[in-house]
Amino acid sequence: MKNPIIPLSMKIAEIACMKGIHHVVISPGSRSAPLTIAFARHPEMKTYVIPDERSAGFIALGMSIALQKAVCVVCTSGTAALNLYPAVAEAYYQHTPLIIFTADRPSEWIDQADGQTIHQVNLYGDHVKRFFNLPADQDFIDFEWFAERTINESINLACEDLPGPVHINVPAREPFYPDPSEEYTYNSGPKIINNIDSMASIDNQTWAFLKKAWERAENILLVGGQGRNNANLDRSLGKFTKDFFVPVIGDAIANIHSLENNLISHHDLILGSQSPSDKLLVPDLLITFGHAVVSKNLKLFLRTHPPALHWHIQKAGYIPDTFKSLTTMIRMLPEDFFNQAVRKFKDKIRKNIYLNRWEKAQNNASGIIEGFFPQAGFSELEAVYQVIHSLPDHINLHLANSMPVRLVNLLGMLKPGTEVFSNRGVCGIDGCTSTAVGISKLSKKLNVLITGDMAFLYDRNGLWHNHIPGNLRIIILNNHGGGIFRLIDGPSDLPELDEYFVTNQKLSARNTADDFDMEYFFCKDLETLKQGLQKLLKKGNRAKILEIETDSQINTTIFNSYISQFK
Amino acid sequence: MKNPIIPLSMKIAEIACMKGIHHVVISPGSRSAPLTIAFARHPEMKTYVIPDERSAGFIALGMSIALQKAVCVVCTSGTAALNLYPAVAEAYYQHTPLIIFTADRPSEWIDQADGQTIHQVNLYGDHVKRFFNLPADQDFIDFEWFAERTINESINLACEDLPGPVHINVPAREPFYPDPSEEYTYNSGPKIINNIDSMASIDNQTWAFLKKAWERAENILLVGGQGRNNANLDRSLGKFTKDFFVPVIGDAIANIHSLENNLISHHDLILGSQSPSDKLLVPDLLITFGHAVVSKNLKLFLRTHPPALHWHIQKAGYIPDTFKSLTTMIRMLPEDFFNQAVRKFKDKIRKNIYLNRWEKAQNNASGIIEGFFPQAGFSELEAVYQVIHSLPDHINLHLANSMPVRLVNLLGMLKPGTEVFSNRGVCGIDGCTSTAVGISKLSKKLNVLITGDMAFLYDRNGLWHNHIPGNLRIIILNNHGGGIFRLIDGPSDLPELDEYFVTNQKLSARNTADDFDMEYFFCKDLETLKQGLQKLLKKGNRAKILEIETDSQINTTIFNSYISQFK
Repeated sequence: MKNPIIPLSMKIAEIACMKGIHHVVISPGSRSAPLTIAFARHPEMKTYVIPDERSAGFIALGMSIALQKAVCVVCTSGTAALNLYPAVAEAYYQHTPLIIFTADRPSEWIDQADGQTIHQVNLYGDHVKRFFNLPADQDFIDFEWFAERTINESINLACEDLPGPVHINVPAREPFYPDPSEEYTYNSGPKIINNIDSMASIDNQTWAFLKKAWERAENILLVGGQGRNNANLDRSLGKFTKDFFVPVIGDAIANIHSLENNLISHHDLILGSQSPSDKLLVPDLLITFGHAVVSKNLKLFLRTHPPALHWHIQKAGYIPDTFKSLTTMIRMLPEDFFNQAVRKFKDKIRKNIYLNRWEKAQNNASGIIEGFFPQAGFSELEAVYQVIHSLPDHINLHLANSMPVRLVNLLGMLKPGTEVFSNRGVCGIDGCTSTAVGISKLSKKLNVLITGDMAFLYDRNGLWHNHIPGNLRIIILNNHGGGIFRLIDGPSDLPELDEYFVTNQKLSARNTADDFDMEYFFCKDLETLKQGLQKLLKKGNRAKILEIETDSQINTTIFNSYISQFK
Repeated sequence: MKNPIIPLSMKIAEIACMKGIHHVVISPGSRSAPLTIAFARHPEMKTYVIPDERSAGFIALGMSIALQKAVCVVCTSGTAALNLYPAVAEAYYQHTPLIIFTADRPSEWIDQADGQTIHQVNLYGDHVKRFFNLPADQDFIDFEWFAERTINESINLACEDLPGPVHINVPAREPFYPDPSEEYTYNSGPKIINNIDSMASIDNQTWAFLKKAWERAENILLVGGQGRNNANLDRSLGKFTKDFFVPVIGDAIANIHSLENNLISHHDLILGSQSPSDKLLVPDLLITFGHAVVSKNLKLFLRTHPPALHWHIQKAGYIPDTFKSLTTMIRMLPEDFFNQAVRKFKDKIRKNIYLNRWEKAQNNASGIIEGFFPQAGFSELEAVYQVIHSLPDHINLHLANSMPVRLVNLLGMLKPGTEVFSNRGVCGIDGCTSTAVGISKLSKKLNVLITGDMAFLYDRNGLWHNHIPGNLRIIILNNHGGGIFRLIDGPSDLPELDEYFVTNQKLSARNTADDFDMEYFFCKDLETLKQGLQKLLKKGNRAKILEIETDSQINTTIFNSYISQFK
């Protein structure tokens, strides 16, 4: 008789496929072999073997982001499952569906000093939408229904609004490997539970209630948090902001930079001045949509001057109160809300005084930025300015934590059609390369990652596998340490700065490029940067690295001088 | 007024020092800055900054193992804390005291979409001895007592039998950095709670009860699990086994290979034969001590033929039932038990028939091993044989998972005085280099790590810092993949073998050696290996790598031929 873990694993692959999942990231292991083989042999599954589970998790996260669909992850028991945790947490806070399958020993063998055994029940705590434990034994009457329903439920739950990771623990007894002659057919005809989503709408009475508040408000501000390129949203948001003369703030990661009107992208600079005129920018009605916001100055500004009303538009799921001002949660898709609000609110034509203040500040900032470069000393700020200017349209732009995403946000001049990605769920540096690898792998566009030396070296294993995407271009801002600590208040004047915070390190990425057979270019001034960018962005099917070496001290001086322009 | 997190952090460093902790591993971060600076400025603390928290955790584990004392770990909030988890789990199952300090946001800011924020309460689940949450606020009457008692309690708990990790979460509000002019003095005179251990003894009635069972037993077998070099144990165990003619089985990681009599080290080979004569080796009284056992054949043998009685000697803490045969837990130190048992049990002089059977099998195995080399084809088994023969006395030998520890165990011929280390708590490949780095850093001996290409590359960041120990020698068995999958039953005949299990990878360690300024030697046959070993083991203060490239197919053939000698 077959070991029952084999048909169960086949059923998992079969149901996942029938539920529309076709990509699986697998890390090698023996206890997970039944799952690995079941996915590997399924004719409609694409599998990616990644040895380091930490990177595997983030690569799967990237794939799920690229597809906007769930991706499965398979790992063996023990610390393998723990190494997935950073990516699981990022997926949870970045609202990305991952189906995590961890192989396990059956419960009687936990804590009996056998290898690769830990407590895997509820391993990821509050960082998954739910934990499921499949039974190690199958000889009970409801087994088949229970297993099929659990697999369906886990996938449905991961994918439904707000999406996120789920964890399915799979305890199994030996043997783990099929007989070489065993044939795998995927025709068990498992139960499928569909999950049909509905459109959300609010009734006229509620619209009337909202309209009353809207009409009472003088200064209305929109803020978009992290989101995806979304033509529907661009359209309805564009009309809404134009018709009603309302400004809309968007970080780089909000991906609303294709808006033609009323977009404020220099808010982090504008609000960094702490000048009394800032008060004139305070809204009395704040309308937000999307997820995390990068700009710390925006957070401080709104927390210090909370608007009387704050509506957040989000169809389902938990809503954080980032600005300490939330008063109303509106359970619709933002694109639907703005679309309908254009008609519902249309009676009141708003004056544009408040908008003009923001636009003036935005234009002023744009002028300062354009006049600021070139600088006498070459710095990473100027490098990023050049990079952003040189990038072609319609690419995927990946921004690592912590400095690259802040620098791009501080320059705020993305081309329409660029889609920006960044791990702003937990904001770790640990999986920035891996996530970009995952997205690039399932994308036909050019993918450019801007990262720092610390984030790049931390996640080197994101390139340690046989799936490096040829459309990936990595730009490394190498200032030989965590330069961010020179720029934030506090550590820069302390004797501990270099050793304990910046963590000076002298590596270049040259050997890494060689290890992984990537083209490599190096530059350290404006001239060689321009040449390097040309080579980097040339078409070709081989992944490339452009390393930009800058001086940490000069970076600090120029960054501070840049920021001071806006004070 | 000072931010209260600063004096609290100073108090933590002060109490840790007064409790005898002088080593702290720190990963950079801003929220953790108060802790970092408090430890960095303490005149009696040595700090080690390690950027990748996964490696930081394992390096701290290694340091704690080296010292046999607690080591502190400091990291910032978010995925930083998650990256420590593999080392925390290994420390838990390897019974090693780590004091993990994770910086955190105060609870009102959890889940409000601020960066680097997750749920850190009870983060490490069942893999710490206890979780403590320090208060973010201090203005309550019992604060000082509570904080001091919590810090004392956590350290006492981590260190007392069985030792293990504890987790102290430290929520804090900004600002995190002291004024540059602020002076740090560590004289708050905090409350110290001492923890005085006692000696364990059992009464005469209980000895009489044990003696009765002992006298009834015909075939008595001792098995030592993972343990440290221990001269007291060697002495009492040596006398016990010699006086009573009992065999004692010891894996490489048991560190009892200095015993001069009755030591069985080839049990994994002896018990791999599954011949009918094995039954004559079955004990009726099994006495075990120490922790995990490497040999799978030993586990299978004892699980299949459980002894009527199984005593495990361990002073305190949870005892796993690895052999499914546990009947009595004796709460003493093994060295004390054997020392006293020599006198208590002395009336009965045991015959040596059972011992002779084991010794015959051991001698037979030794002969086969010595006659087996050299082989026509050079393989990693022969490489390890050569390495073990060439190593000087009195070194620390680190064995990575999964193959190196198995290969050394299968050869079973360690020199007296060698101390063997291996992450056999959870048996992951994820921190083998980092752990060896941590141990070497605090050791005056020569430290040799034998690792595989997968484990080495997985944990490359274990070398990414400014603390590479000059006494470290890394031997990499590079067969370009996870060769273990060719050797275990099951995957070797499947079409998925290379891609999904072995995970062929083509990297060499040459670039890594260059990156980290280590001497590098390469070999691929017996001749160059011998030369390489000479260079590797030459005295010097620079860390060195010897990479031994072997052919995975040849390894498999020779390994299988070796194993078949014992069938």
